[in-house]
Amino acid sequence: MIIVLVAVAAIAAIIFGFIQSRAIASASPGNERMQEIARAIQEGADAYLRRQYTTIAIVGVLIAIAILIAFKFNIVIVAGFLIGAILSGAAGFVGMKVSVQANVRTTEASRTGGLGAGLNMAFKSGAVTGLLVVGLALLGTVGYYAVLTGPLGFATTDRTVIDGLVSLGFGASLISIFARLGGGIFTKGADVGGDMVGKVEAGIPEDDPRNAATIADNVGDNVGDCAGMAADLFETYAVTLVATMVLASIFFSAEAVTQMMTLPLAIGGICIIASILGTFFVRLGKSNNVMGALYKGFIATALFSAMGLAATIFIVMGSFEAVVVSAAGLEISALDLLLCGLTGLVVTGLIVWITEYYTGTDHRPVKSVAQASVSGHGTNVIQGLAVSLEACALPALVIIAGIILTFNFAGLFGIAIATTTMLALAGMVVALDAFGPVTDNAGGIAEMAGLDDSVRSTTDTLDAVGNTTKAVTKGYAIGSAGLGALVLFAAYTEDLKYFVARAEEGTFFYGVVADFSLSNPYVVVGLLFGGLLPFLFGGMSMMSVGRAAQDVVEEVRRQFREMPGLMTFDQRPDYGRAVDILTRAAIREMIVPSLLPVLSPIVLFFVILLIAGKAAAFSAVGAMLLGVIVTGLYVAISMTSGGGAWDNAKKSFEDGFIDKDGVTHEKGSDAHKASVTGDTVGDPYKDTSGPAVNPMIKITNIVALLMLAVMAH
Amino acid sequence: MIIVLVAVAAIAAIIFGFIQSRAIASASPGNERMQEIARAIQEGADAYLRRQYTTIAIVGVLIAIAILIAFKFNIVIVAGFLIGAILSGAAGFVGMKVSVQANVRTTEASRTGGLGAGLNMAFKSGAVTGLLVVGLALLGTVGYYAVLTGPLGFATTDRTVIDGLVSLGFGASLISIFARLGGGIFTKGADVGGDMVGKVEAGIPEDDPRNAATIADNVGDNVGDCAGMAADLFETYAVTLVATMVLASIFFSAEAVTQMMTLPLAIGGICIIASILGTFFVRLGKSNNVMGALYKGFIATALFSAMGLAATIFIVMGSFEAVVVSAAGLEISALDLLLCGLTGLVVTGLIVWITEYYTGTDHRPVKSVAQASVSGHGTNVIQGLAVSLEACALPALVIIAGIILTFNFAGLFGIAIATTTMLALAGMVVALDAFGPVTDNAGGIAEMAGLDDSVRSTTDTLDAVGNTTKAVTKGYAIGSAGLGALVLFAAYTEDLKYFVARAEEGTFFYGVVADFSLSNPYVVVGLLFGGLLPFLFGGMSMMSVGRAAQDVVEEVRRQFREMPGLMTFDQRPDYGRAVDILTRAAIREMIVPSLLPVLSPIVLFFVILLIAGKAAAFSAVGAMLLGVIVTGLYVAISMTSGGGAWDNAKKSFEDGFIDKDGVTHEKGSDAHKASVTGDTVGDPYKDTSGPAVNPMIKITNIVALLMLAVMAH
Repeated sequence: MIIVLVAVAAIAAIIFGFIQSRAIASASPGNERMQEIARAIQEGADAYLRRQYTTIAIVGVLIAIAILIAFKFNIVIVAGFLIGAILSGAAGFVGMKVSVQANVRTTEASRTGGLGAGLNMAFKSGAVTGLLVVGLALLGTVGYYAVLTGPLGFATTDRTVIDGLVSLGFGASLISIFARLGGGIFTKGADVGGDMVGKVEAGIPEDDPRNAATIADNVGDNVGDCAGMAADLFETYAVTLVATMVLASIFFSAEAVTQMMTLPLAIGGICIIASILGTFFVRLGKSNNVMGALYKGFIATALFSAMGLAATIFIVMGSFEAVVVSAAGLEISALDLLLCGLTGLVVTGLIVWITEYYTGTDHRPVKSVAQASVSGHGTNVIQGLAVSLEACALPALVIIAGIILTFNFAGLFGIAIATTTMLALAGMVVALDAFGPVTDNAGGIAEMAGLDDSVRSTTDTLDAVGNTTKAVTKGYAIGSAGLGALVLFAAYTEDLKYFVARAEEGTFFYGVVADFSLSNPYVVVGLLFGGLLPFLFGGMSMMSVGRAAQDVVEEVRRQFREMPGLMTFDQRPDYGRAVDILTRAAIREMIVPSLLPVLSPIVLFFVILLIAGKAAAFSAVGAMLLGVIVTGLYVAISMTSGGGAWDNAKKSFEDGFIDKDGVTHEKGSDAHKASVTGDTVGDPYKDTSGPAVNPMIKITNIVALLMLAVMAH
Repeated sequence: MIIVLVAVAAIAAIIFGFIQSRAIASASPGNERMQEIARAIQEGADAYLRRQYTTIAIVGVLIAIAILIAFKFNIVIVAGFLIGAILSGAAGFVGMKVSVQANVRTTEASRTGGLGAGLNMAFKSGAVTGLLVVGLALLGTVGYYAVLTGPLGFATTDRTVIDGLVSLGFGASLISIFARLGGGIFTKGADVGGDMVGKVEAGIPEDDPRNAATIADNVGDNVGDCAGMAADLFETYAVTLVATMVLASIFFSAEAVTQMMTLPLAIGGICIIASILGTFFVRLGKSNNVMGALYKGFIATALFSAMGLAATIFIVMGSFEAVVVSAAGLEISALDLLLCGLTGLVVTGLIVWITEYYTGTDHRPVKSVAQASVSGHGTNVIQGLAVSLEACALPALVIIAGIILTFNFAGLFGIAIATTTMLALAGMVVALDAFGPVTDNAGGIAEMAGLDDSVRSTTDTLDAVGNTTKAVTKGYAIGSAGLGALVLFAAYTEDLKYFVARAEEGTFFYGVVADFSLSNPYVVVGLLFGGLLPFLFGGMSMMSVGRAAQDVVEEVRRQFREMPGLMTFDQRPDYGRAVDILTRAAIREMIVPSLLPVLSPIVLFFVILLIAGKAAAFSAVGAMLLGVIVTGLYVAISMTSGGGAWDNAKKSFEDGFIDKDGVTHEKGSDAHKASVTGDTVGDPYKDTSGPAVNPMIKITNIVALLMLAVMAH
């Protein structure tokens, strides 16, 4: 019954998204020139995603075959993988499709209806992506679970169900890391490369139509910030649900298992409804405060979710005093679970607030970066790096407090419920995020179509908020990963215990006693190795962006050199070639870093197995899962917050930044140029390496879980 | 007997250093102008260190009183603290004193005798600092230990001996974090601030005498890179010795304890002799390869150490087949211990080699940063950050391999012996490092005294090598911290066990069972909290440099504005005021970040104690110790390697950098300017925040150990 309601809620979100997307499609796409530009962006984005998905499909099929063999041709488990992979890909694809329709319509709405109309169009597009992401993720998970435990007749705690769910998570993660990284390399290669030649060498403004990389830059917003982000959040949502369900299946006594495995799905369902309702609260008030309008929607969603959460837990449990008992004998009341869920909501709110503080133009951090630009490029970068490092502290303390609180309410499962509730808001959060690339594109189209400066100024206002909301989502995604760390690690250790307890003499798991104590050197080895991965991954992906940007720089330079009419507007640049070059670069560069987290747990396991045997190998891999989270959390937060701060520090100069001595620095001043350097540095930080750390963490964890399952078969 | 020999070796190092320093003092200090400049630097350095030490003394006395009270007026333990603190301060002070004599003499030697003579003088000065650092550290430790176990009659495993040794380590750590941070803020505030106004605004070269910050910049090299570094390495050496002795006291069965507590001291003694011998091998060959000359000394030291190690272990153990037995029954042979020591030497060699690869001008990383400068400021910084992140990987793998190998040879104690042996080379490594600031100063003096360009070119050759050797020492110090992580954590857990086992009913430790398993949420909380500290500390210290630099920028600008004769050389800037301003800024800024690691373990302990009780609090603090190392290792390596790479990428342009298209970019070109931005960013990275992470890690660990001891009293 509950499962049916959850499925209905998920379908409702998809239908609502569909209706909204029709509304977008029916809005005016502006004049001929605007439509022409929008078409070029659409074609580029289509072409890129087609290439990207083809490549991912090849890797995906190979891995599906590997899973098929590893699980002895168990179709059910491969089906899980395919569902996760295909829906994750679909979420990204649909998100991109909607964005490339909404961008030009946002420009047009800003032109004809001003800020309110522009906001409305851009947010509507974000909401479609957001609701589709959560709708598809929830529907996929609940549907798969329902089929397995219904028609196929598996018990809820049957290993096939658990392994199948993990496999679904793996499918989602695999696509999302490729999508995040490939899209991230594309978008920032275009952005950095285009700026290097355009702004710095040729002295033409951002998004100038004479720059061959402009269309690619706009394509990048759609395939990176939109499609990549959607796949990433799909993955975060699906993996968290799956991990909570896996934990529930092991954590609870037999009577409570089914009920508790359904609870995360029910929370997901009710929060989707809250998100749909929340979208109606995004309205620009009299103060024209865009951030405020978005906040209204977010707060409404959170309040509806809180109420829905209480109702859901009441219904699932029967009363607030009702108690479920864990396998270890821990009694957890419905009220405890509710408090955990509410903690998840509060953590989300605090992380959003902290991220806004660190990346919003009105607060100390961004102002300090803008001020530092006055003394030069170097001090701008130093201050930005300092802000990025400092930005880790408060989110970390919030996450730590969340862990302590929820653990005291309801043990490990309490942490899982908090994480699930946090992620249940993803529909709204993704809507806020997907809003960003649309407004960014809208500004680019306004510039290229030569519209009135007032249009650009409207879209710039939206875009500045978009920079913050983009940073917010990343903080949120990585924050949930931090809180979910223990859940994934618990799933790993509990799974391991499960297999060891049931192992027959002579089988692989027989007699293994993994010691996860910090005084075990293999645990320290695992922590250090896991801790290394986000740094290495960050370095590799930054270099990828550098190489992609270099390719773009050369192409744009070549066009300027070989097409003399370009600067005088007599010739039009060959946008398609720039898109094409970037497509090839991004696809080429995404492979190796993406495989790092997939292969690392496997390599570490076998190396330690050879040196010190099974127990040490299991300990090292387990510790690695926590190591990757401990450093990954900070690497990701610092990169995304720092990047957002640099970007908005640059934006501060566009309306003239007044420094502490009262001097105004205009666009084009030395201080502004210094701020552009920081922005360039922040680009791969915040849009490639930083956000890709989140799926990277998940995939490491999921691969480890899957490895256990494979060994048990 | 062995203890006496160790003390003799330590005294020999001090005497050798004294003789060398006399030789330096007797060399020609150059012409009147050079001496005048050198005097200004000396006076500035003296004035700064006086202020710094006064401030530290106040903090130190307060803490000494706190220790006195906490340990119920146990004079012996406070004496340990004072010995550590005073000798650490002395090492820094003497290092600075020698450097400020050697700088001008290196200029003069380069002028009259060329590269070989300059190298000889600069290295001699480095060797004095290096040998004094290890000599004082070893003498302090062995002397204190000898007095306690001799005249005062304590048993080697008496808690007073252990607590006293830990207290000595704490004294050393406390001074070193202040010295590293204060000196680092001073030097980089001067460097960044001076460059911002001088190079960027006024368009005058580095070290130009018209820049009011030049003397301060040179003072900074001496108080930061020299005095700060010396205090830091003193601390690293002392804490490692102490931790190994503490571990030995707990790890071994009663018969083996004294023998094994003496072993680290003996290794320290023999390696000091090896380092003295090694200094004679630093000779410039026909190829004029400065790095090669330094390597000869390093390799000779390593070879002598390896031989000495074998002899020492043979003597201490009686034969290579002799076996000692741990309290847990593990049998460790002399050969096992020798293999551990040799592993320590190999790890040192590999880390030196890897760091040179990442920061030397002839290899891919630095070349890639230089190449990236060609497309602009932004790409230069991106590539530098990418290199800095990537640079973590190989050192981490070396450390991981070291942990696995030595643990398999001789358990936890094997790791401790490897770390001790690694640190035993500190005399030579510090000599290589202290060489850097002297050559940097020598170049500055040549520039300011208006000497022939050929002199500057000679000192620049030395300085480029100095940049690499400086990075090498930092990699080495932090690498040893990584390897020593388990030792310090083991000391903590073993201490805890010791106190719990002996606790009487009703006392604090009675019945505490701390669970250090990763599935304990308080362990995860500790890991996350510990992992946060290096990021937060890095952010705070980068901001401190930014503020100090801002103060300097304003002062230099003021002088240019109010002294019209400055640019035309008709007026001389007021160097003293710049030094004074920086002194105040550095002292003010060093306090808060330095207290972060001192207070964090205490705060975490009491917060968790209140929430979840003693066992959870002990678990969280223990996990914090590992958390701070897991992230600290990577934060420190990435900052120091990245900074070194940026610095040398800039140096590549000084003789003209030929890019991949064959175009030569000269000094003053746009590409060179972009490389200066990276260098500026790298300055606080590599000389303030990065290196200060090392004492930060140690101090967190030592405070935790001390906290246990206090609670037991």
